[in-house]
Amino acid sequence: MNKYDIAVIGSGPGGFTAAVRAAQLGAKIAIIEKSFTGGTCLNCGCIPTKFLWQSLKTKQKIQKSYEYGFKTALEPVIFADIIIKKDRNIANIRKGMETILSSYNNIDIINGTVSFKNKNTLIVLNDSKNEAFEVFANKVIIASGTKPSAIKDFAFDGNKIISSTEALNLKEIPKNMLIIGGGAIGIEMATIFSGFGCQVTLAEYENCLLPNEDSEISEKIRKNLLIQGVDVLTSCDNALDNSDKYEKVLIVAGRTPNNDLCSEIAGIKTVKKGFIETNKFCQTNIDNIYAVGDIAGKNLLAYTAQNEGAIAAENAIKGNSIATDNFIVPQAVFAMPQSSSVKVSDFSKYKDTVFGKFPFTASGRAFIENERAGFVKCAVDKATKKPLAFWIIGAHSDELISTASQILKSGMEHISRETIFHPSLSESLLNAYEDAFGKCTELAKKKDQNIF
Amino acid sequence: MNKYDIAVIGSGPGGFTAAVRAAQLGAKIAIIEKSFTGGTCLNCGCIPTKFLWQSLKTKQKIQKSYEYGFKTALEPVIFADIIIKKDRNIANIRKGMETILSSYNNIDIINGTVSFKNKNTLIVLNDSKNEAFEVFANKVIIASGTKPSAIKDFAFDGNKIISSTEALNLKEIPKNMLIIGGGAIGIEMATIFSGFGCQVTLAEYENCLLPNEDSEISEKIRKNLLIQGVDVLTSCDNALDNSDKYEKVLIVAGRTPNNDLCSEIAGIKTVKKGFIETNKFCQTNIDNIYAVGDIAGKNLLAYTAQNEGAIAAENAIKGNSIATDNFIVPQAVFAMPQSSSVKVSDFSKYKDTVFGKFPFTASGRAFIENERAGFVKCAVDKATKKPLAFWIIGAHSDELISTASQILKSGMEHISRETIFHPSLSESLLNAYEDAFGKCTELAKKKDQNIF
Repeated sequence: MNKYDIAVIGSGPGGFTAAVRAAQLGAKIAIIEKSFTGGTCLNCGCIPTKFLWQSLKTKQKIQKSYEYGFKTALEPVIFADIIIKKDRNIANIRKGMETILSSYNNIDIINGTVSFKNKNTLIVLNDSKNEAFEVFANKVIIASGTKPSAIKDFAFDGNKIISSTEALNLKEIPKNMLIIGGGAIGIEMATIFSGFGCQVTLAEYENCLLPNEDSEISEKIRKNLLIQGVDVLTSCDNALDNSDKYEKVLIVAGRTPNNDLCSEIAGIKTVKKGFIETNKFCQTNIDNIYAVGDIAGKNLLAYTAQNEGAIAAENAIKGNSIATDNFIVPQAVFAMPQSSSVKVSDFSKYKDTVFGKFPFTASGRAFIENERAGFVKCAVDKATKKPLAFWIIGAHSDELISTASQILKSGMEHISRETIFHPSLSESLLNAYEDAFGKCTELAKKKDQNIF
Repeated sequence: MNKYDIAVIGSGPGGFTAAVRAAQLGAKIAIIEKSFTGGTCLNCGCIPTKFLWQSLKTKQKIQKSYEYGFKTALEPVIFADIIIKKDRNIANIRKGMETILSSYNNIDIINGTVSFKNKNTLIVLNDSKNEAFEVFANKVIIASGTKPSAIKDFAFDGNKIISSTEALNLKEIPKNMLIIGGGAIGIEMATIFSGFGCQVTLAEYENCLLPNEDSEISEKIRKNLLIQGVDVLTSCDNALDNSDKYEKVLIVAGRTPNNDLCSEIAGIKTVKKGFIETNKFCQTNIDNIYAVGDIAGKNLLAYTAQNEGAIAAENAIKGNSIATDNFIVPQAVFAMPQSSSVKVSDFSKYKDTVFGKFPFTASGRAFIENERAGFVKCAVDKATKKPLAFWIIGAHSDELISTASQILKSGMEHISRETIFHPSLSESLLNAYEDAFGKCTELAKKKDQNIF
């Protein structure tokens, strides 16, 4: 009865994409989900975070609409109303995903918790129905994701000590909040809650926010948070000592793999903390088992999961033929304004690099959109003039970064002005690139740069 | 006294970029402008149009902010207030451009009307000072631009029969307006004026709006204008018969070269209507004279002018070494929502093409931004799977199109999912591309498409 070509564990971006692609290729598929369809991304990650961020952005746009000559009055914001809208959007998207899975692709959606019986047999436990049954599959794609990591002695209690999952479902804005972790999620949470009136303290163990990001971007984000009223603490290892001062303590200090699958029974090799080891074909050490997305621990990013999901599906069905690339992977942080960056994966091997920078204050489009805060920074290999990296902080940087990604991905050595619409913010990429040579026509020439 | 390495005629995007690039290369430059610094683009083209469009967009965002749970009240819009803000932004940008020219690059800005005395000597007439003088230059770069074309028997009178220049400076919204010309400018004007309450009739001679655009985009824009309340007339050659019914008649039926330069005295060859003929180095038939932007008549687009300006400057100083390319030139039309498109210049030579399409209603980010109107369409060469063209209608399409341009420019044969941030609208490009093969994981598979 429960026999499939492929069983996919998890319906987040990795599992969803793997299941659909495999079905497109003609395979009979089951997707097994222990919680809501859509996984972390849809239910407690990308989508709700960006919806709340967009709400804040809209509020700020209304408050600044006098820049277009408008007079507006905004009634006091009721946070619960925003949450209702967020949940309605998530429900709509989830319904769309379930339609794609079941109606369009004849995929069986099975609710329950999975453990391996052997490399081809899964035991699925459905708590609500109080039943267990077996699913047999020729191939298995594991996309079980990650969950928020807890900190010793500060276990999540769902009330005061919370993870991002609970934070995204608060019905009202707390008076104050301590956020532990100055990575992307911590910064996004600080931005949203402080933007809606919470007194936020953001504590980071390292000596700066986003320790792996360009220091100029990291510092700009810190300053913007300070201006927004967030108390930013860096090199801070004792913030929790004062946890009783806060209404909420939000811990966003890393993520832990969802590997309660008894994967060892199937003989699957894991590495530190329980992430599953995979080769470049997204295959585990067990031939018929693949793993994609967060659980494989490469980049904990939805689009990496989607990419790996599609690759694993193709490889599982056609034999290993497509390898992951990971040469160009952009990242974005939704502070206010948002920042994005992308660099070639072998960036560190370039020794003689020049930098260009273009501020949005010099962009006509930034004037038009009243979005003059921000800049684009570009790293260029001096010898070949090849662009190697872009960092963007400012409006729409999460869309602009895709243009930068394609430039780097293609190895283009020149950005042609006429390929970029004017007036757009995208022009700033070209201007930053040309500035690396002192050749940007929209800026003063730097005295120390002249490699025409 | 008035001796220069290069004299640049016109300070729009082409002239400005040419002058600055030439100065960066060490040349002594004069830029001669008969009106305001910045030319059509800044003063009566791209910038004011997009500012008014952005004002309308902001108004709509305020009115739809209930989608985020907000309650807002917008006081009645006073159009004159928007115009004041627009003019202030233009003045700021103009000041910036003049600083770049004179302070950063030591370029002499000369005000006056130019005519050629010979190929190295220009006569400049400054009307306000009632003086004429000569400027001598080794090289000349002509960037004199274009102006709105008039229609026989309906000369612009600056009051009732107006061009886009006057329209962008109206202090109040007319009760009704007849717009002659359903190209990009006509559509943008119809969008803006109708959006702020004017009863607009838009008349186009051809049988559709934007006759050179993809018919699906053109039709979508027509429908959106109708929904907005614009009366759209196509295959219409007699709209002016009823001109007495309208408070304003706006004529946007093409543009005419600003060639009152006595260029024939210098022996410069012109083609139909007075556009100046140039070779691929942006050089005219006279060795020391280059022409760029609208006056050279290739694409009447600001970014083509900028590109040609930079190329002409390099060639004028270093000898002809850089050729124009024009392989990839995106376009955008600011209807509501805006549309953009880009295709490889040899698009028509591909005979076996498949199409993919992705609606914004299937994009998570479109939900987040409450921008679910729109789609991306992609044309792919069936044999090589190479993307050949993208058409986008929807929010931010003017920025998204730059990513499409880079994909086409580089000749990439594959768009990698992990190069595009999630959740973004940019993902729609990939989804439309994959849909061409029935491989988009976010859509139903089309029965007639399966070329895996």
